[in-house]
Amino acid sequence: MYYQGLINKYRKYLPVTDSTPVITLNEGNTPLIKADNLAKKIGLESNLYLKFEGSNPTGSFKDRGMTMAVTKAKEAGAGAIICASTGNTSASAAAYGAKAGIKTFVLIPDGYIALGKLSQAMMYGAEIIAIQGNFDRALECVREISEKYPVTLVNSVNPFRIEGQKTGAFEICDALGKAPEYHFIPVGNAGNITAYWKGYREYFKEGIIKTLPKMMGYEAEGSAAIVRGERIMNPETFATAIRIGNPASWTQAEAARDESKGKIGCVTDEKIAEAYKMLASTEGILCEPASAASVAGLIQANKEGLVEAGTDIVCILTGNGLKDPDNAIKYSNADVKKTSSELDDVLRAMGI
Amino acid sequence: MYYQGLINKYRKYLPVTDSTPVITLNEGNTPLIKADNLAKKIGLESNLYLKFEGSNPTGSFKDRGMTMAVTKAKEAGAGAIICASTGNTSASAAAYGAKAGIKTFVLIPDGYIALGKLSQAMMYGAEIIAIQGNFDRALECVREISEKYPVTLVNSVNPFRIEGQKTGAFEICDALGKAPEYHFIPVGNAGNITAYWKGYREYFKEGIIKTLPKMMGYEAEGSAAIVRGERIMNPETFATAIRIGNPASWTQAEAARDESKGKIGCVTDEKIAEAYKMLASTEGILCEPASAASVAGLIQANKEGLVEAGTDIVCILTGNGLKDPDNAIKYSNADVKKTSSELDDVLRAMGI
Repeated sequence: MYYQGLINKYRKYLPVTDSTPVITLNEGNTPLIKADNLAKKIGLESNLYLKFEGSNPTGSFKDRGMTMAVTKAKEAGAGAIICASTGNTSASAAAYGAKAGIKTFVLIPDGYIALGKLSQAMMYGAEIIAIQGNFDRALECVREISEKYPVTLVNSVNPFRIEGQKTGAFEICDALGKAPEYHFIPVGNAGNITAYWKGYREYFKEGIIKTLPKMMGYEAEGSAAIVRGERIMNPETFATAIRIGNPASWTQAEAARDESKGKIGCVTDEKIAEAYKMLASTEGILCEPASAASVAGLIQANKEGLVEAGTDIVCILTGNGLKDPDNAIKYSNADVKKTSSELDDVLRAMGI
Repeated sequence: MYYQGLINKYRKYLPVTDSTPVITLNEGNTPLIKADNLAKKIGLESNLYLKFEGSNPTGSFKDRGMTMAVTKAKEAGAGAIICASTGNTSASAAAYGAKAGIKTFVLIPDGYIALGKLSQAMMYGAEIIAIQGNFDRALECVREISEKYPVTLVNSVNPFRIEGQKTGAFEICDALGKAPEYHFIPVGNAGNITAYWKGYREYFKEGIIKTLPKMMGYEAEGSAAIVRGERIMNPETFATAIRIGNPASWTQAEAARDESKGKIGCVTDEKIAEAYKMLASTEGILCEPASAASVAGLIQANKEGLVEAGTDIVCILTGNGLKDPDNAIKYSNADVKKTSSELDDVLRAMGI
């Protein structure tokens, strides 16, 4: 059988049976890219691999969790799914809702007017409902509704999301034939670091891998709740996908850190932007700004002497840079050289 | 060995040797998605599969050709690559140029100011040169420069592009264990239909497949040069990726049509837009508008009785819809419902 999504591929490790109606967009199976240029650039004496989750169907790692969440919703006979989200979660939910043939409701705080961010979910046919109130109130609403009506909540509190996301760890181990020594990952809501750690532990328990990686999670400095040890009321960072002040999987992220002898650190927006640009210009990979927190973390950890030489290192790039055209425009070198169309002038402009 | 791009996977069929320095971003290996919802919606009594090329590293099928073109440029010792392009080709060239560690020059007609379209190439580090003159003059310039200087032209005249692109056909046959009966594909410059037909023929010659598909290419009506049998001076269509009035691979496309007993037809912008929206809302796939020409073509061909029931049909979706946020916003249902945050009001807005 050819590749038909991560549930079919890893069903042995997932809460599905033969009669479960699998809702898939052939998510997962994302590229693991050897990044020799970047390793050299940052003075790394190890093998560096980038796991590009932007290749997923809706452009982010959220699809791994959503295929599970929507499959289980469909299995349970849900008439609809619901989430509070203005970003990657809503896009992913809406795409899988469309594939499942069930309605997707997306609740957002009113006053949020950036239609661009929501156009993906709307194209997939989601119904957008803007409520008077903030994001927390939207979250309360969707929780209440999902408790009282046959509408499945697919925000990160949905436990099946983690199950789907853990397959990223399986793919890395299957590709390398072992676990990496270090796993660098952006931390926002902290569900992804939780999921990867779960995946590595399951493969370890099965004897498929003989060692476990150190889990190295990186928050943005302006929203580094776990690092600071306190909820941040007004989280700030241009890396919107990790602009979260009260991570849902806080304790699990700390457990992943402690059990793996890893670290949860934070990086400044400046360093995230630097890594974001460096990934594009040295490796030809355009990721979301938030994704680059893993690489910014690696650069920092390497400077701090936390990375042993001769090891295998994986950085997770959580989303596709095409999702954030504004930052791509802002950070691209917009220096267009103008010239006549005479060949000599063109050559001069080229520096030849 | 885990998947490391299409050259490593299909090197037997490609013009490389063991000493060729392979420049790869792990392109190819794109999802083939069974599209039962869409098949039902359009009244198709066949198996419908969508090949989503938007999962490629820079978001379009161009990466298949570019890995070959840049690999061969690197092998030949080129100091730089060059192309005239304002779209997918420039993005792909710049990404592979970055990975190869060589300079990428992109020539565009001056007055072209949509930085959004070029921001991807700029993020990858391309040098953009705007010349006074139209696109044809830009093409003349890059041809002349590549003839006189050690700068490799990677526009579609580069013969290695077709070699890389033909691997899409290999992947389809490997997945299905046979060739489909019908292969629907958008036609702009006509390089892609040429490449797929080459790929199918090579697999057929090797005995890997026993039959060949009918090649069904679809141009946009406003730029249907092949259908009309004449160069179109001012091609028009909102599907910019196929807005081409003088296809570079015109004769090869006609050969593919004739040899396969297929068809080259055209579809209106209205029908392309319909298919574009239908793909998102029924299958959860957001592609570039131009990509939807294949599905619009299928819908039309099915109505015309050209599609036999009980067959396998593949539609190529050439690019990622995230590349064209403006059309996603324009065609998404922007009907956001506003409500208070009282649960009863929210439920009413949801129609519950």
